[in-house]
Amino acid sequence: MGDLTPRTGDTPPKQDRSRATRRRLLEAAVACLAERGWSGSTVSVVAEAAGVSRGAAQHHFRTREELFLAAVEYVAEERSQALRALGGRSRAEVVEALVALYTGPLFRAALHLWVAASDEPQLRPRVTELEARVGREAHRMAVELLGADEAEPGVRETVQGLLDMARGLGLATLLTDDAARRQRVVAQWSRLLDEALG
Amino acid sequence: MGDLTPRTGDTPPKQDRSRATRRRLLEAAVACLAERGWSGSTVSVVAEAAGVSRGAAQHHFRTREELFLAAVEYVAEERSQALRALGGRSRAEVVEALVALYTGPLFRAALHLWVAASDEPQLRPRVTELEARVGREAHRMAVELLGADEAEPGVRETVQGLLDMARGLGLATLLTDDAARRQRVVAQWSRLLDEALG
Repeated sequence: MGDLTPRTGDTPPKQDRSRATRRRLLEAAVACLAERGWSGSTVSVVAEAAGVSRGAAQHHFRTREELFLAAVEYVAEERSQALRALGGRSRAEVVEALVALYTGPLFRAALHLWVAASDEPQLRPRVTELEARVGREAHRMAVELLGADEAEPGVRETVQGLLDMARGLGLATLLTDDAARRQRVVAQWSRLLDEALG
Repeated sequence: MGDLTPRTGDTPPKQDRSRATRRRLLEAAVACLAERGWSGSTVSVVAEAAGVSRGAAQHHFRTREELFLAAVEYVAEERSQALRALGGRSRAEVVEALVALYTGPLFRAALHLWVAASDEPQLRPRVTELEARVGREAHRMAVELLGADEAEPGVRETVQGLLDMARGLGLATLLTDDAARRQRVVAQWSRLLDEALG
């Protein structure tokens, strides 16, 4: 505010600050959703956690829906980039990393958003569209990292079932930390998957 | 009220009526949870849907928590009995029936209860305990119906992974009806399971 002089420097610090604020808001929004659920997640709560004024938060995201949809999408993209770095790892390591995608705070946040969307008509189509996009990207990455040949009959469904299993394992961690059980299931299905994919 | 004369007839109609009212409340509670989620599910809404007065509903269930926990447990038991009738079917049919357990209104209702419990400290321990009990029963039934020998290494984890996949498929149906995709995944994983169990 008030600074209307055109900048001539080689870095635009105002734009950098704005981007950093946006990122802080998105990260705080995912953490908030994962910890407090949809009913406890408001723009005010997120702004406070991010150390940003409510006005600044609303400058970035006009509505609560916009903030949380953008947050889930942002973190999903971050995770997708992390997955890409796994190229060349063994299948067992890839399966472990895929399952980890569904058992962390991102999945927990996304789960709260899905469940809220299932009852809220104005949120539902946007969350459905986001979920389909994130799901397709996860599938594409899984096929690539596992070296699966989708031209072979059954391979596409084998990989889809693996991602469904990962989602189910994520759901099981919602109430109790069952990491030990999960590890044994993942090890066994990695072996079965390895045989199935040849 | 007022009827204090001891009954001498061979059927106790009052007790029968009470049991029928209880059952109607439990069924309405599951439907309500599946359709409106936790925040839209109150004793009043359920009582109205069941055609029971609020006072009568509170005579059966003192608190909202009691009503919905009992409802999820009741329907889980009904489903479990339906599963028992599947003895002697092929593995593919059993897998299909197991997956159906996780894609109907019961799972949808349970999912809303789990997600609500994950943020509500007074609900969480009871839902966690109920979920563990229902999960153990589903596992026990799956082992029996699939003719799986848990003494063999890996078999226990193979069956657990199958139930996790079913749970993940259930989650995928929350926002979109993906029955066609699900059918293909289930057919393929039935084949993998059949090979794994021998």
